[in-house]
Amino acid sequence: MSNAASNVANNAADNAADNTITGDALIGGVAVKGAGGSFQATDPALRAAIEPAFHMVSAAQIGQACRLAEAAFDPFRALSNEARAAFLETVAAQILALGDALIVRAMAESGLPRARLEGERGRTVGQLKLFADLLREGSWADARIDSALPERAPVPRPDLRLRMIGLGPVAVFAASNFPLAFSVAGGDTASAFAAGCPVVLKAHSAHPGTSELVGRAIVKAVAQCGLPAGVFALLTGTGNGIGQGLVAHPAIKAVGFTGSRSGGTALMAVAAARPVPIPVYAEMSSINPFFLMPAALASRGAQIAAGFAASLTMGVGQFCTNPGLVLAIDGPGLDAFADAAAAALAKVDAGTMLTAGIAAAYQSGVHKLGAHETVRQVMAGVSADGKGAPALFRTSAAAFLSQHALQDEIFGPAALIVACDGIEQLRAIAESLEGQLTATIQMDEADTEQVRALLPVLERKVGRILANGFPTGVEVSTAMVHGGPFPATSDGRSSSVGTAAIQRFLRPVCYQNLAQTLLPPVLQDSAAGQAWRRRDGALTRE
Amino acid sequence: MSNAASNVANNAADNAADNTITGDALIGGVAVKGAGGSFQATDPALRAAIEPAFHMVSAAQIGQACRLAEAAFDPFRALSNEARAAFLETVAAQILALGDALIVRAMAESGLPRARLEGERGRTVGQLKLFADLLREGSWADARIDSALPERAPVPRPDLRLRMIGLGPVAVFAASNFPLAFSVAGGDTASAFAAGCPVVLKAHSAHPGTSELVGRAIVKAVAQCGLPAGVFALLTGTGNGIGQGLVAHPAIKAVGFTGSRSGGTALMAVAAARPVPIPVYAEMSSINPFFLMPAALASRGAQIAAGFAASLTMGVGQFCTNPGLVLAIDGPGLDAFADAAAAALAKVDAGTMLTAGIAAAYQSGVHKLGAHETVRQVMAGVSADGKGAPALFRTSAAAFLSQHALQDEIFGPAALIVACDGIEQLRAIAESLEGQLTATIQMDEADTEQVRALLPVLERKVGRILANGFPTGVEVSTAMVHGGPFPATSDGRSSSVGTAAIQRFLRPVCYQNLAQTLLPPVLQDSAAGQAWRRRDGALTRE
Repeated sequence: MSNAASNVANNAADNAADNTITGDALIGGVAVKGAGGSFQATDPALRAAIEPAFHMVSAAQIGQACRLAEAAFDPFRALSNEARAAFLETVAAQILALGDALIVRAMAESGLPRARLEGERGRTVGQLKLFADLLREGSWADARIDSALPERAPVPRPDLRLRMIGLGPVAVFAASNFPLAFSVAGGDTASAFAAGCPVVLKAHSAHPGTSELVGRAIVKAVAQCGLPAGVFALLTGTGNGIGQGLVAHPAIKAVGFTGSRSGGTALMAVAAARPVPIPVYAEMSSINPFFLMPAALASRGAQIAAGFAASLTMGVGQFCTNPGLVLAIDGPGLDAFADAAAAALAKVDAGTMLTAGIAAAYQSGVHKLGAHETVRQVMAGVSADGKGAPALFRTSAAAFLSQHALQDEIFGPAALIVACDGIEQLRAIAESLEGQLTATIQMDEADTEQVRALLPVLERKVGRILANGFPTGVEVSTAMVHGGPFPATSDGRSSSVGTAAIQRFLRPVCYQNLAQTLLPPVLQDSAAGQAWRRRDGALTRE
Repeated sequence: MSNAASNVANNAADNAADNTITGDALIGGVAVKGAGGSFQATDPALRAAIEPAFHMVSAAQIGQACRLAEAAFDPFRALSNEARAAFLETVAAQILALGDALIVRAMAESGLPRARLEGERGRTVGQLKLFADLLREGSWADARIDSALPERAPVPRPDLRLRMIGLGPVAVFAASNFPLAFSVAGGDTASAFAAGCPVVLKAHSAHPGTSELVGRAIVKAVAQCGLPAGVFALLTGTGNGIGQGLVAHPAIKAVGFTGSRSGGTALMAVAAARPVPIPVYAEMSSINPFFLMPAALASRGAQIAAGFAASLTMGVGQFCTNPGLVLAIDGPGLDAFADAAAAALAKVDAGTMLTAGIAAAYQSGVHKLGAHETVRQVMAGVSADGKGAPALFRTSAAAFLSQHALQDEIFGPAALIVACDGIEQLRAIAESLEGQLTATIQMDEADTEQVRALLPVLERKVGRILANGFPTGVEVSTAMVHGGPFPATSDGRSSSVGTAAIQRFLRPVCYQNLAQTLLPPVLQDSAAGQAWRRRDGALTRE
């Protein structure tokens, strides 16, 4: 990078040494005021605006961030695994260095409690380190070497070598419900950085201050590691225009998004309509079916109900993997489960939701579901303004199968029990479901064969199948899949959590008969023994 | 499968024991006449219709094929690696068993010579066997196990296991220019089968008889291996309606296509507009830039010209990787190259093209390119009706940069030389290019540093970078990438040739705390040592 660019980035780092939130966007390593109208965060508990004012970035500012990201792509992806790993660790360290100011601001902007946000910060830092480890391990590059066969008849085989490279600058949209782990330095950003892709981040308008703090931490890390300032930008604003302009910009090569189905599908449409279409990884809508198999229901229905109620109300039900649909065979066992769940849910007070809009949508969703003729309300707490109280409904399988609207996600602590007349109907319900992030099966050993028959259906429908657990709480690890067929995500081939998330932002390049000196390091003969490679089809460290 | 289904499939196998081409579609393992209007293949050399008549399938027949594929998906993907490998090998054996009838029919329908088609059959059989080997090796499943950590605080880690499964039924579109290797049992079908996905194949209307023969070979293999008949269907017809109906069908979960940019983008639009969008892997349009670096041009320009002319005219230029764009620095070296290439091309007669439509489009493309004010014709042979003769044009870098239409692919043996005023302009041209399948660099050692500066640009633009070779002739192997950013393909994250092609049709599923007996075999503890797996992040055979 040039000295000028380095100075600029260092200036930005210095500016924020005191953790002041200035209401700025971050473009080219410097704090800049959005050129458009102003907006403020709201404390959802106090229902009061929080200082300072932020400003909408203009189309020109979006363009500037994208062009800088484009220019930063080649040098950023040329970094060694070690250098990019060190950058991720520096981001993690800078986030920790924000100290309690980050937690306090995130609490005010999200209404989430301290313990949750401290845990989320730990997860955020942990996943940055996980990707650093992944880079050092090296097999993410999927290096392959097919040796030349100069004597082969009728034509010789050339020397062929393959490795993965980043797609290019990625537009990342921060999520409302994870102000840290799925936002500015969350899983999308960490995996895009790991893949060598610069990130242009659209901050969520519900937590702009939290976003600025974390954004400044990344800007500091960029400067500290001597990287081009275009590796990261933070864009501020409300509404859909900025995001659509960002996704439409020719420099952007992929999109990471966590949010609503309508928001995600709108971005998919923008991406598909570009002169050069790009992939969109949108994590959108899931009601996470929760299967109560007969033996488990009979032997421990009340115990399951307690755990279910805790999972449903955790974080006021504002998890993507919230269990919103309970499926079981009708009978006294299910009645007992419903009673126990209702009793447990009745003990949970209405909780402050992330935003007034989310709380209003929750209350409207609960009202709409209860208004269905075929749906009976088992229990419903009182959802005051800005708050969401648990709600439990019940319907028949026949009603569920005939009314697609009963599959609509209600974001919050509400669930619908569907009573089936037998195992075949339970399977028919499973077959009727849209794509889901998760499916949970509560089962005893006596349920095994019925579960075995159900599994192929669930494999086609969901990204993660759990036995005897609860879907909330997503492990960040190698074998995790946080994804699933549409509309759970826009692209069921992907996971947005865990190391598999890096694969979303990679594409293969093949080198034929290139001289050793021109090959990327991982493909040079001299790298033998340093990384996993596939040589003539066989995995080896040589 | 049921006995009834098995009998049906055996009947179909028996019907075709004599290699008679009946003009039928193949649905549910039986030969059925398309319910719509009739069409016939044309011998492009004789310009005469070939018997028998084929018929357009109806929407109901498309639906039937798709529903059978949907029903076949679970049993087909449940097969062991060994069983699916044996199926692929049986398909290969059945293709060979067609004997010379296949070659004779393909020659008549395509105008391609015997040696080329015999080679293409070898490649087709070879790639089926390559995918069989890949299945037996097993690492395609990307098995991952994260061990449970019951003692971890604050929350235990569950047992998490991931593997890849097929996406579901795949719609495959046969290509005009590879009646065997990219058609009924070509790379798309082989990789989809390997992934456990049934295939509904839209035969190309230019070679329906070849398609029926190969389709019957697959139907026989399906029956011989005792698979559900819905694993494969062959649909017959002309025009766009059948393909669009096929891509729109809810049972179809992915699309493989090789053809024109307009055809591919039309299918992309259909797929994106579905209630449940699906991935499209369309291999479309590429002009395959061919860089003549200064030292190589000076030392061996004439030699390169001979190889270039041979590559450009191979198969009458009807390869996806045909080198249609030559980039070099202006001067006597480039003049000498152009003269030598023109002399070599002048010795190549006009060749019969695949179809009258392709020949007409070629002649129109050549005419249009020559009509540009800024383009000079270096040589052009005489393209008689149905035939294409070589053509070579020249323009300046400034003209090329200012007229995007000069990047349009002309499918056939035509190339455009772009003369640059220096290395920076050469790099600017590279930066201006759309996505490509390949880029070729002719270089001597003295060109190394200039190539090094060019490589990052090419990595962003193309799927395969070749040094000192020619782009035609695509190896089917582990490290091959036959893909590239849009519009070379619809999805630059993929390759349609080589073992990487399987990844297009896979998605991950995670299992959390499932009992051993319910886990898929590759994830059971007892599979340790039998397949590569990633345990707690580390690749191991245990």
